[in-house]
Amino acid sequence: MRCWVEGAAGSAYDVDNLPYGVFTVTSSGDDERPRVGVRIGDRVLDVAPVAAAEMLDVHDVFARDSLNPLMAEGPATWASVRTWLTGLLTDEHERDLVEPHLLPLDEVTLRLPFEVADYVDFYCSLQHATNVGRIFRPDGEALLPNWRHLPVGYHGRAGTVVVSGTPIRRPTGQGRPSGVSAGSTSGRPAFGPSRRLDIEAELGFVVGTPTALGESVPTGAFADHVFGVTPLNDWSARDIQAWEYVPLGPFLGKSFATSVSAWVTPLAALEAARVPLPGQDPEPLDYLRVDEPAGYDIAFEVLLNGEVVSRPPYAAMYWSPAQMLAHMTVNGASLRTGDLFASGTVSGDEREQRGSFLELSWGGTEPFGDGRTFLEDGDEVTLRATAPGALGGRLALGEVTGRVEPAG
Amino acid sequence: MRCWVEGAAGSAYDVDNLPYGVFTVTSSGDDERPRVGVRIGDRVLDVAPVAAAEMLDVHDVFARDSLNPLMAEGPATWASVRTWLTGLLTDEHERDLVEPHLLPLDEVTLRLPFEVADYVDFYCSLQHATNVGRIFRPDGEALLPNWRHLPVGYHGRAGTVVVSGTPIRRPTGQGRPSGVSAGSTSGRPAFGPSRRLDIEAELGFVVGTPTALGESVPTGAFADHVFGVTPLNDWSARDIQAWEYVPLGPFLGKSFATSVSAWVTPLAALEAARVPLPGQDPEPLDYLRVDEPAGYDIAFEVLLNGEVVSRPPYAAMYWSPAQMLAHMTVNGASLRTGDLFASGTVSGDEREQRGSFLELSWGGTEPFGDGRTFLEDGDEVTLRATAPGALGGRLALGEVTGRVEPAG
Repeated sequence: MRCWVEGAAGSAYDVDNLPYGVFTVTSSGDDERPRVGVRIGDRVLDVAPVAAAEMLDVHDVFARDSLNPLMAEGPATWASVRTWLTGLLTDEHERDLVEPHLLPLDEVTLRLPFEVADYVDFYCSLQHATNVGRIFRPDGEALLPNWRHLPVGYHGRAGTVVVSGTPIRRPTGQGRPSGVSAGSTSGRPAFGPSRRLDIEAELGFVVGTPTALGESVPTGAFADHVFGVTPLNDWSARDIQAWEYVPLGPFLGKSFATSVSAWVTPLAALEAARVPLPGQDPEPLDYLRVDEPAGYDIAFEVLLNGEVVSRPPYAAMYWSPAQMLAHMTVNGASLRTGDLFASGTVSGDEREQRGSFLELSWGGTEPFGDGRTFLEDGDEVTLRATAPGALGGRLALGEVTGRVEPAG
Repeated sequence: MRCWVEGAAGSAYDVDNLPYGVFTVTSSGDDERPRVGVRIGDRVLDVAPVAAAEMLDVHDVFARDSLNPLMAEGPATWASVRTWLTGLLTDEHERDLVEPHLLPLDEVTLRLPFEVADYVDFYCSLQHATNVGRIFRPDGEALLPNWRHLPVGYHGRAGTVVVSGTPIRRPTGQGRPSGVSAGSTSGRPAFGPSRRLDIEAELGFVVGTPTALGESVPTGAFADHVFGVTPLNDWSARDIQAWEYVPLGPFLGKSFATSVSAWVTPLAALEAARVPLPGQDPEPLDYLRVDEPAGYDIAFEVLLNGEVVSRPPYAAMYWSPAQMLAHMTVNGASLRTGDLFASGTVSGDEREQRGSFLELSWGGTEPFGDGRTFLEDGDEVTLRATAPGALGGRLALGEVTGRVEPAG
């Protein structure tokens, strides 16, 4: 089974990957309707005309401007479409049909690939939670009492999830009354552009199959509901967050932007990446028990202006995505197609595996790289992630990039 | 200017009210498409055919299954449609045209009136925040340091906002390891149906006009963006919330359901209800300054199984809705049509003005009414709210009701 598309076989976007996105041909301007594309090598397959020509039952879902209609079809359709695509791209007999619909990647414009319904952000890395606890509460216990009993999470702003490449404007807001801004008067909060703008390298999970209100999703049904994954940058203004977050959690320190990839990698592509969790102690409550392997061996890289500054290992995550989903719905909260939930910052045991500048610079006290603490205007941050693929190589998850613009 | 619809003049749904909803005729079953209705007296005006007959520019927006297309039109259209509706319902010459499209309220089924984009919940009552602080932190300061400097808020789950009348299933979840459930073993969290199911009587604000990412909404532009209001019940499981909420805020303790009215009252109907805020000390930062009157004199009633148990006064709220909106967008977070933001629990100075059972029963230690603390299965809670109207009487905001069902 070898892909006939030039340069695709053996690449990070071979037929064991096949991520989905939404695109237009750049030169067509606004005349063309966005539609679903599948990445193969450095090409984008315009799926709709091929699916229509082959009279695929669900061909309509590829002519749409988001992945939501495809994602709503459910796991049997996801699997049959993947098998069909694999056939198209490996059977030389399909070449004449397919080749006219393969577009060079640099000739298309990629869009936010799905309509985000609700966005939930978790806090699943033991190392990250421990680091943050030590930085913010140096005299207390690093981990709060609930942390090992449930995947702590909160709702974020769905309307400000943006596609990779979208510029990130430095947010303005309030900070603590003292020590944050030289301009703050006694007892008045500081106000101005954030001085501690940060990233969080995360993995996001995109829900396809919805549930009814009152229904819960057991850990074993994870793959029936989750369509795919995307690296995710949870941009964070630490000074805004530190002042606002008690007692109701992060709000404006996060809500200005969250970046996702233009490519959603199907969960099916990550079968070879499954690994056991590092171990949970104490054993979680019944509704959070998982069959192993429940983790994913996904290697992240964080690049600052083109230089790798960190390599967070997703395999180190304490809570699995199946546990996040089971927890999120144990109270009967319903799921909608397009729900996005993210892992929280991925951090490993080593300093060079930390997934935020807060941790890399230990709260701004230990500059890293060429003397950096937080983000400066003009900085560009890119998240890359790879995983073992079914064909023996490593597949790439679509990258997530964003450049910091000055405050407005 | 007198309404010719029988029984409407002088009622709580006179032409100074005119709330919008989405309905189907109950007897039509699934054959009929939901469409926009306006309540007048105890009738619902089926707007679409009248607007089409009169060739209103925007007549299409009334034939839709949510208010979002109307809300997206912006304040000039909202005003002209309101003027047009008022003319239809007060000019006897319009009677022949309009009367065939007035349906008895009890012959229609009301639906969730708008598609919720993002849902944000604030914490704007000084009395409520003080009560909660005293209940949960009896030895500390009741108010946290940030509370008087910014309207504290967080994102809730948009996908579980339900229309009045939807049954509320008691949620299941984790509680603190000790003292919550007799079945919990040492050190293990409790697990089971919530034992401290509560309400929060709030006012919700529905955004019509969107903004671009990076844009902020000054307090003076509030009425350009907010289409209308709805009473809102932020159902809360206190035992789940108390265990999960540190450090990222409420999650499963709230996300199982939030109820709103089937009727959205236009902001324009509340002009006569505007009152000055009770006073803010210290003076807020510049971006939070408001021109008075910035508050609203809306009188709430909380009914438990038909008996009034509380009368929370919205006029007592510390932070105004214009301040909530300005704060929510000061970091550049964009607005979408359908965004919903709520005030947080409305509580007054007196015990019988508290807007949650948590406060009415002082954390469950002081039973109220006929010996109640938290909600029991089968309980029905109704929120009602009225405000001074432009015609000198009081207009009613659509009520919000829900009955508690046993855990699944």
